[in-house]
Amino acid sequence: MSEAPSIERLSLNQITTESWNLEEAVQGCVRQEVPWISVWRHKIHEIGLKQSRKLIQDAGLQVSSVCRGGMFPAESASERKEKIEDNRRAIEEAAELGTDVLVLVCGPPSSRDIDSARKWVEEGIEELVPFAEKHGVKLGIEPLHPMYAADRSVISTLGQANTISENVNTSQVGVVVDVFHVWWDPELYKEIQRAGRNILGFHVSDWVVPMPDMFKGRGMMGDGIIELRRMRKAVEEAGYHGPIEVEIINQAIWDQPGDETLKQMKASYLEHV
Amino acid sequence: MSEAPSIERLSLNQITTESWNLEEAVQGCVRQEVPWISVWRHKIHEIGLKQSRKLIQDAGLQVSSVCRGGMFPAESASERKEKIEDNRRAIEEAAELGTDVLVLVCGPPSSRDIDSARKWVEEGIEELVPFAEKHGVKLGIEPLHPMYAADRSVISTLGQANTISENVNTSQVGVVVDVFHVWWDPELYKEIQRAGRNILGFHVSDWVVPMPDMFKGRGMMGDGIIELRRMRKAVEEAGYHGPIEVEIINQAIWDQPGDETLKQMKASYLEHV
Repeated sequence: MSEAPSIERLSLNQITTESWNLEEAVQGCVRQEVPWISVWRHKIHEIGLKQSRKLIQDAGLQVSSVCRGGMFPAESASERKEKIEDNRRAIEEAAELGTDVLVLVCGPPSSRDIDSARKWVEEGIEELVPFAEKHGVKLGIEPLHPMYAADRSVISTLGQANTISENVNTSQVGVVVDVFHVWWDPELYKEIQRAGRNILGFHVSDWVVPMPDMFKGRGMMGDGIIELRRMRKAVEEAGYHGPIEVEIINQAIWDQPGDETLKQMKASYLEHV
Repeated sequence: MSEAPSIERLSLNQITTESWNLEEAVQGCVRQEVPWISVWRHKIHEIGLKQSRKLIQDAGLQVSSVCRGGMFPAESASERKEKIEDNRRAIEEAAELGTDVLVLVCGPPSSRDIDSARKWVEEGIEELVPFAEKHGVKLGIEPLHPMYAADRSVISTLGQANTISENVNTSQVGVVVDVFHVWWDPELYKEIQRAGRNILGFHVSDWVVPMPDMFKGRGMMGDGIIELRRMRKAVEEAGYHGPIEVEIINQAIWDQPGDETLKQMKASYLEHV
């Protein structure tokens, strides 16, 4: 498999082993020789930031990103301010854990007015830039699949994420390409090219048919319909050569032993990504 | 409610009362004074085309569309030819029932190669044009929500549908705007304007949170997050003043008495569309 990506780039996005706490995930990565990890904030908060950092450093793992900031829209200015504050904490956590990428899931609309929600997302990101810069953390706007536009993110396409990134106009803000969210987009390859060196992350999983659940239904790479290798090559051509996170939200995978999941994802990564 | 659309434009898309056969649906429309009906082919085939026509004509209903042609992609040229043939039958059925609109659900990819599937859709539509013209039936490309890109339609945005319609370049081919499929699209209002007088239909329902089912989870108008009135006004400004179909695929609604559904949809239509 000369075309396979280097195992040096493989990262466990921690949500893939949701039943593990951070210590178990770190130990699992060490046992299965997965060199990177992406850490979720709810897992950090279970044991605290210092302990999280120590675990990861002692294990010799690299942190590809922290998940997640964002969730900007809210009806009142004061609520939006609170959300910005929470994003500042997320930036501090990313910096403390030694990663330069905070993934942004931008949030759902607070009413039927989706245009305002999208405006608040851009304003929120803009407001965070100086703080992010000071902490050496980049903000990665991750468009989510349009089926999550009502409850998770009003940023639904790579085109929207690119436009915000261009409007904000600083290398501090870029985009995260997750195959599950963007594979269907007729503008995908054009937008990957447009994103270019603003790509801050590449996440893989698969879209299986039928999908067992709208949220917890992502598949292991190779089990679905996504042209994974084509997309990986496209982000590389655009200039991204960083870690590749396996991010699979799937109840059946959560229910199996974590080491099993890590073995499967390594094999699927080499064969299909 | 001076802003409400005229009841003269209301159409029952027959899938909304899936538990009714065509005769029951026609009688229901008469009882509840719904002037239009959109007929599904599987319901026509239960009783035959002539009987279907007689039922509808005797009741004095108008047919807003026939659902559905499409399903173009297939690996082999001979399979694709068969699908074109089936679309010719659908065109004949539409003509016979006295509607000038056949709704196209364009079909899923036959492999991971989504680009080829999209090419086959455009080729299929192009091939149908002379036959459609001869029968006085227009082909309405209905983009489906991107969550159906793997199993129902590789045409996921109004932009794609507009591009095909423009490429084919005949008034015989247009687009159908269904709020459930396109509400999330950041390019929506631009694309409605672009579609202009090529809009051949407008379908309403709602997007509820949480969605009970990816397929059978559409909501009654007003129960969800979609800016229905804004979209209705946008398609009117673009030039569409034809029937408005209520198309709700929802198991709970299917399980209730059809007359109840028709009463609800009339009230919701006047209040929210």
